[in-house]
Amino acid sequence: MKNHIFTAFSFCLLFFSQAILAQQPLLGFKNENAASQRTLEKNFDSNLKTQNLDVWMKKLSAHPHHVGSPYDKENAEYMAGLFRSWGYETTIDTYHVLFPTPKVRLLEMTSPKRYKANLQEPTLKEDATSGQKSEQLPTYNAFSIDGDVTAELVFVNYGVPADYEELEKMGIDVKGKIVIAKYYGSWRGIKPKLAAEKGAIGCIIYSDPKDDGFYQGDVYPKGPFRRENGVQRGSVLDMPLYPGDPLTPGYGATKDAKRLDRNNAPTLTKIPVLPISYQDAKPLLEALEGAEVPASWKGALPITYHIGPGPAKVHLKLAFYWDIKPVYNVVAKMKGSEYPDEWVLRGNHHDAWVNGAADPISGMVALMEEARSVSELTKTGWKPKRTLVYCAWDAEEPGLLGSTEWVEDHADELSKHAVAYINTDGNGRGYLSAGGSHSLEALMEGIAEDVIDPQTKVSVKDRKKALEIRQNGLENYKGFRLYALGSGSDYTPFIQHLGIPSLNLGYDGEDDGGEYHSIYDTYDLYTRFKDSGFDYGIALAQTAGRATLRLANADLLPFEFNRFAKTVSEYTEELVQLPEKLRTKVNRENALIDAKVYELTQDRFKQAYQPKRKAAVPFVNFAPLQNAVAQLKKQSAQLQEKLNANQLNKNQMEEVNLLLKKSETFLTNADGLPRRPWFKHFIYAPGFYTGYGVKTLPGVREAIEQNDWKETAMQIDKLSKIIGNYNRFLEQMTGVLEN
Amino acid sequence: MKNHIFTAFSFCLLFFSQAILAQQPLLGFKNENAASQRTLEKNFDSNLKTQNLDVWMKKLSAHPHHVGSPYDKENAEYMAGLFRSWGYETTIDTYHVLFPTPKVRLLEMTSPKRYKANLQEPTLKEDATSGQKSEQLPTYNAFSIDGDVTAELVFVNYGVPADYEELEKMGIDVKGKIVIAKYYGSWRGIKPKLAAEKGAIGCIIYSDPKDDGFYQGDVYPKGPFRRENGVQRGSVLDMPLYPGDPLTPGYGATKDAKRLDRNNAPTLTKIPVLPISYQDAKPLLEALEGAEVPASWKGALPITYHIGPGPAKVHLKLAFYWDIKPVYNVVAKMKGSEYPDEWVLRGNHHDAWVNGAADPISGMVALMEEARSVSELTKTGWKPKRTLVYCAWDAEEPGLLGSTEWVEDHADELSKHAVAYINTDGNGRGYLSAGGSHSLEALMEGIAEDVIDPQTKVSVKDRKKALEIRQNGLENYKGFRLYALGSGSDYTPFIQHLGIPSLNLGYDGEDDGGEYHSIYDTYDLYTRFKDSGFDYGIALAQTAGRATLRLANADLLPFEFNRFAKTVSEYTEELVQLPEKLRTKVNRENALIDAKVYELTQDRFKQAYQPKRKAAVPFVNFAPLQNAVAQLKKQSAQLQEKLNANQLNKNQMEEVNLLLKKSETFLTNADGLPRRPWFKHFIYAPGFYTGYGVKTLPGVREAIEQNDWKETAMQIDKLSKIIGNYNRFLEQMTGVLEN
Repeated sequence: MKNHIFTAFSFCLLFFSQAILAQQPLLGFKNENAASQRTLEKNFDSNLKTQNLDVWMKKLSAHPHHVGSPYDKENAEYMAGLFRSWGYETTIDTYHVLFPTPKVRLLEMTSPKRYKANLQEPTLKEDATSGQKSEQLPTYNAFSIDGDVTAELVFVNYGVPADYEELEKMGIDVKGKIVIAKYYGSWRGIKPKLAAEKGAIGCIIYSDPKDDGFYQGDVYPKGPFRRENGVQRGSVLDMPLYPGDPLTPGYGATKDAKRLDRNNAPTLTKIPVLPISYQDAKPLLEALEGAEVPASWKGALPITYHIGPGPAKVHLKLAFYWDIKPVYNVVAKMKGSEYPDEWVLRGNHHDAWVNGAADPISGMVALMEEARSVSELTKTGWKPKRTLVYCAWDAEEPGLLGSTEWVEDHADELSKHAVAYINTDGNGRGYLSAGGSHSLEALMEGIAEDVIDPQTKVSVKDRKKALEIRQNGLENYKGFRLYALGSGSDYTPFIQHLGIPSLNLGYDGEDDGGEYHSIYDTYDLYTRFKDSGFDYGIALAQTAGRATLRLANADLLPFEFNRFAKTVSEYTEELVQLPEKLRTKVNRENALIDAKVYELTQDRFKQAYQPKRKAAVPFVNFAPLQNAVAQLKKQSAQLQEKLNANQLNKNQMEEVNLLLKKSETFLTNADGLPRRPWFKHFIYAPGFYTGYGVKTLPGVREAIEQNDWKETAMQIDKLSKIIGNYNRFLEQMTGVLEN
Repeated sequence: MKNHIFTAFSFCLLFFSQAILAQQPLLGFKNENAASQRTLEKNFDSNLKTQNLDVWMKKLSAHPHHVGSPYDKENAEYMAGLFRSWGYETTIDTYHVLFPTPKVRLLEMTSPKRYKANLQEPTLKEDATSGQKSEQLPTYNAFSIDGDVTAELVFVNYGVPADYEELEKMGIDVKGKIVIAKYYGSWRGIKPKLAAEKGAIGCIIYSDPKDDGFYQGDVYPKGPFRRENGVQRGSVLDMPLYPGDPLTPGYGATKDAKRLDRNNAPTLTKIPVLPISYQDAKPLLEALEGAEVPASWKGALPITYHIGPGPAKVHLKLAFYWDIKPVYNVVAKMKGSEYPDEWVLRGNHHDAWVNGAADPISGMVALMEEARSVSELTKTGWKPKRTLVYCAWDAEEPGLLGSTEWVEDHADELSKHAVAYINTDGNGRGYLSAGGSHSLEALMEGIAEDVIDPQTKVSVKDRKKALEIRQNGLENYKGFRLYALGSGSDYTPFIQHLGIPSLNLGYDGEDDGGEYHSIYDTYDLYTRFKDSGFDYGIALAQTAGRATLRLANADLLPFEFNRFAKTVSEYTEELVQLPEKLRTKVNRENALIDAKVYELTQDRFKQAYQPKRKAAVPFVNFAPLQNAVAQLKKQSAQLQEKLNANQLNKNQMEEVNLLLKKSETFLTNADGLPRRPWFKHFIYAPGFYTGYGVKTLPGVREAIEQNDWKETAMQIDKLSKIIGNYNRFLEQMTGVLEN
């Protein structure tokens, strides 16, 4: 009974607050247009139906649909048909990319005992599509080179830089060895890249049960976590160098494009790489001897983890079909009524490693329902002011190939027309996860206040706030923030190559599982354990749909620069702290070495642990950057005082909108980042040694992290100038508003 | 070559520093006696032979020698013979105690599938004594009551108070259930005690591989850690209430002593308890469903840990032979030449759960070699000034029975004669671990500076310092400190019942293993993985031997009160902080509850998590205690200014020595601690809900921890008065020195 009263009361509150909402100002809208936009969004919401998501997910994930598969093409055509039926001007933009598939996969331990890896994911009677053996891609890492190597095995934890530092202190070298690394801790492609740099001749990656297996929860089909024989497929292309087709760097992989010789393609691995299950990893790890692993390296297998090298010796033999395969990007446009040359882009990929119900179909179907609902709105005569471009990318999985080739191929048009790109890539259950350009943070906060969490009936901003308060305490809540974009999905070419303001949206936090890139990422698993009922799919459509509709309809583009300036200022403060922290760490370690602490605490029965003295960390001149950032805060504050749709005439509005559209490009530089010119954004980039993980102010940050003090100074200079140019651009916009 | 130079140089340094040492003052010794004491200690060292430790360990651990076994008696007689051969006046002091042994042990899962626990530790061909089946005690917990119960199973993590708080938040009740708890996290006896208080009807305790099995390192015989079928035996007597024979609380269990009816003995468990291996635990835990455990509860078994209750249902049936068994304490005396009525006691137990090479023989043989070397010194005519009493206790394992009965039986003599008690209980490899009365801290620091670590050749104080610096940083090194004594070995009746200043000494930190209280605690394991070569056994003999010899020979008893005052002041500061911390925690939790954070972050697929609002924490008046402690610091400083052997005449010295000997008794109170009057020391006690773990200033601390604010005030008053009495006693001593 009490519950009913509470619900009724909540409903009144909700109704009341919605009524208030309709009168509130809306970022980028004149007051007279804000109310109609809210009504539009209300109608948009009311069109959304969970059942469509369910039906489409079942359909799109009914068969494996990786690049080059018949069902991949069938899905593209099916979606294109739907978009057309909803009134979108739809094309399938096709490119031709290198896409290797396995010819030979052999992994065996040759001593101290023999074990031949199974490399198979079995059919489960509880999962309807898991038995589609003839259609499934075998378990492999795309863009591993061919190879046939035999060597002693070494366990390298996650295979990230910190792990190799630890190995060095123990005097363990991987030169000439085959390494075995756990998944997680970095994007997978970092593991063979770093192993090869350290001299290893082969790389095995396995899913330790600690990370997404029984340690995390019940395994499939009892729960959603990875079974002993589940394997994570995935690309190991060196994406931090450049994503997309490895043979056509920087330009579209059209049919007749000039292609690099595969042997000269720099983004293929240098050593053969194979992913395996923990069932296959266990005998290998069990056979390792030598030093026991540091405590933080331990996984959840019921063994004592040793590092080796050896006595386990393994033979790894891999060969691939190095075919050129077509990729089918579905591109659906709805022309803008007032500014047809201003494009708001919205995308999700459609290709999967196998059936891919969660990754990527759960996001794809939310996008489709969003597009359908938008098309419903047009039946009443409404049209978006700006052009909408809905995209279903192909070939995201092997390395963002579909989106990257399309973006490279359409770079000029996009530079002229694109206002923003809104990405999704799968969806789950729980909390809004929103990343992107910080000039869009205020927009997204407004949206997060307006979208209602389907379970708790508070705003998705408030539910997320509750989570952060629970995790970090009331006193540490920092307000609604966008995370910075690294890589790992199709926003990368938009923001990092072209400087188009981007967002990446999804719901997660209550949908953990271990089906990722396995044959068990299926409709059956998704509807049992993830967003069963698809109500968070609807929440995603509401969230991304609002972003799309507000960007499309705003009188004044809803960019906000104080948040951006504040964020860059925080990143700068982090950078200033970095050498301090490094200095403290190095000094502390050197002091321990000088005090013979490691010698005196050496257990005589254990592997010697002998860190070497490190060079002192120099003091760095951050002043140019700090001055530029101080100016940025001042300039953005001045701009924001004037940037109000209600105070501008139509001419000013149009002039400013054109400038606003270009603003993010001033954060890029044609030279790009050191050693990877494809990446042109100087505020956000994926880390050279993290892969997906973002490095903010990457030029400076990575120079510091690599202890390259000369490059640090050069990059501080470069970044200061870029921010200086940006400041002048903000000043120019302010000037327009003052006239 | 470099190494040789280094070694030669070290040798010179060592020689040089030893030469300096001989001239340095020695706490409690007149300058003219310090040099001869150092010479004595050098001669003492030179007598010590690793081979004796080896031979005696092999002999004493050759067969199981638990209470009541033939080999227990044989060992006692063998040791008594040795002590006599070394010139000690030796008796075997016999008591008669309740000691249950298993008659019926049955544990089976009855649903959802059947599993009958094996309850056996197998023979290993690599271990010579592991096959002595007919002599081994089966795996059991001594002083579990008889019982025959069947119920659903609940996993309670370590089964400590914090775990039950967590269960309450999840709405899980153990009433009428059988709990299964992991070993570790508290002394084992706490687990059934708390389970019974919460309404459980049975308790199973198992060794999770995370705590001392394969997760920690290779298992026996490859390494020293616990095998899948290794079981930790051990007592579950409610020792925090009172240790010793449960039927004769507070007095000696002599042959004709009046005994409680077993059914009225308050220290027996209230529910049946059985320890099992992780091999036996796995099927049970695997069959549990219901909520998944909190992350920190996860063990290392290859399963997803669930809490239950059920569906696993188990049947536990236990019955014991409740016999009275003899215990044989070997007591070997060497009369003091000047102060025969002042006793320095030195002990280690000799009984084991099975063969007990590490626990306790490794400590026992160091004590024996110490006693032998002392006897060698007497061959040159030297005699200790005070009487030495070497003790080999029986029946420590079931609950400190041998030492407690002896202490209770000799309470009057000990109160008159005992100067200090120095305990050891097994020994390992690594770092000096020294706990005790803080009036002995300065003495122990001097000893730690003089004993040389056998591996690194620096002082054992410096090696320990290196470890603490490595763990906590150079800047956080607090200097040499004694830890405070809780319980878990034979010092308990001396310090906590009678207020005799005590020490507990050993070497550890590099000798971890999982053989504890299993049939694999053997000579074979010890000499392969622990103090192989027995050089830390010699270090222990040097350490405890110096403590014994300095206490025995000092002109002025080597007590120091500033360290004690500083330590009590630190404990008081901790107590003052406790309600503050509790208040912060409660306020924080209440704020989260008020903000509906737990409701908003509830995963709908998971067990509800609903903490309840707690009462606000009141402010506490610590002023009486703080004033008493401030006075303590002042009084001890005044005393220490005068307390110098070189400045006192013989009469003063004798008068002060008599007072010094009594000093620690002023920290006790005849009423004892609330609800456990046997524990009379108000500075140190084992925790009522930790068992072994110490609670300093226990009366006040436990009242706060139980949120009993009335008792907190009463205990502050009581402790303030005790410290006030102690202050007046220090003042009295100072007065003697001023005359």
